[in-house]
Amino acid sequence: MNTQGIISKEELLKSWQGHRALARRVIEKFPEKELFEFSIGGMRPFAEMVKEMLSIAVPGLESIVSNQIEKYDHNLPLTTKQELLEHWDADTPKIDALFSEIAVDRFKESFKIFGEYEFPIVENIQYFIDNEIHHRAQGYVYLRALGIEPPFFWERY
Amino acid sequence: MNTQGIISKEELLKSWQGHRALARRVIEKFPEKELFEFSIGGMRPFAEMVKEMLSIAVPGLESIVSNQIEKYDHNLPLTTKQELLEHWDADTPKIDALFSEIAVDRFKESFKIFGEYEFPIVENIQYFIDNEIHHRAQGYVYLRALGIEPPFFWERY
Repeated sequence: MNTQGIISKEELLKSWQGHRALARRVIEKFPEKELFEFSIGGMRPFAEMVKEMLSIAVPGLESIVSNQIEKYDHNLPLTTKQELLEHWDADTPKIDALFSEIAVDRFKESFKIFGEYEFPIVENIQYFIDNEIHHRAQGYVYLRALGIEPPFFWERY
Repeated sequence: MNTQGIISKEELLKSWQGHRALARRVIEKFPEKELFEFSIGGMRPFAEMVKEMLSIAVPGLESIVSNQIEKYDHNLPLTTKQELLEHWDADTPKIDALFSEIAVDRFKESFKIFGEYEFPIVENIQYFIDNEIHHRAQGYVYLRALGIEPPFFWERY
């Protein structure tokens, strides 16, 4: 973007994948039933939040790489913890590959992600990551409420 | 750091202050008593999480700017919502000023923040921000459990 950049493309991807590794640990900690059913204060079960993450990351990157604006769809047909984890793991190398296809100069370009939010591409991707951190943290509270110790916040490998 | 940087120093600060503006809205939403007393699953009340944020941001930046490693202290003598918000608001321009004092070339330097975590300075600061997003999201669950609608995630102004 400019010579003042303090976070490189590679560093942003590494940070994201580190956060995703921690989110995967949070999914793993949930018992099957509670993953899909437990909630607090009328919020969605954690599985629904995970499906949101899955329906943003790869579809969002695909849209950016192809320069085609697509609506998003959170209704992924994933009904077991195993299916969620398999989808999660399948997306890990897809995120690496798609992210790598975005040319450095494009990160400052404005893009109307999902046809709704017009920001520079780098901000769209920061939003994906921040949204994952946000919902993962809500999963931490669900786990605590269930009497389950969540993973350490710094376990990003 | 290098010409491949996709996030500038100014952009990282703007993103952080946007997140802090949203965290302030979350503090404001809490009733006085619940801010200091309500908890789920044995977790800390939200006021304690806010004190953690306050005891990391400015003290952490001061330590980086002065190049002096200091231990952190979460036991800030803040016992009312008004005191928390005043401390929060007093820290906003301090964060701008301290962050600006860090030379671009220093962000890649390794620094043992609080004498415990040795990472490049840019990663220390990303950790501060991510930790704030994490605890703020836990405040969202507390608010929902109290029947209070949290602010929109995208309200960063």
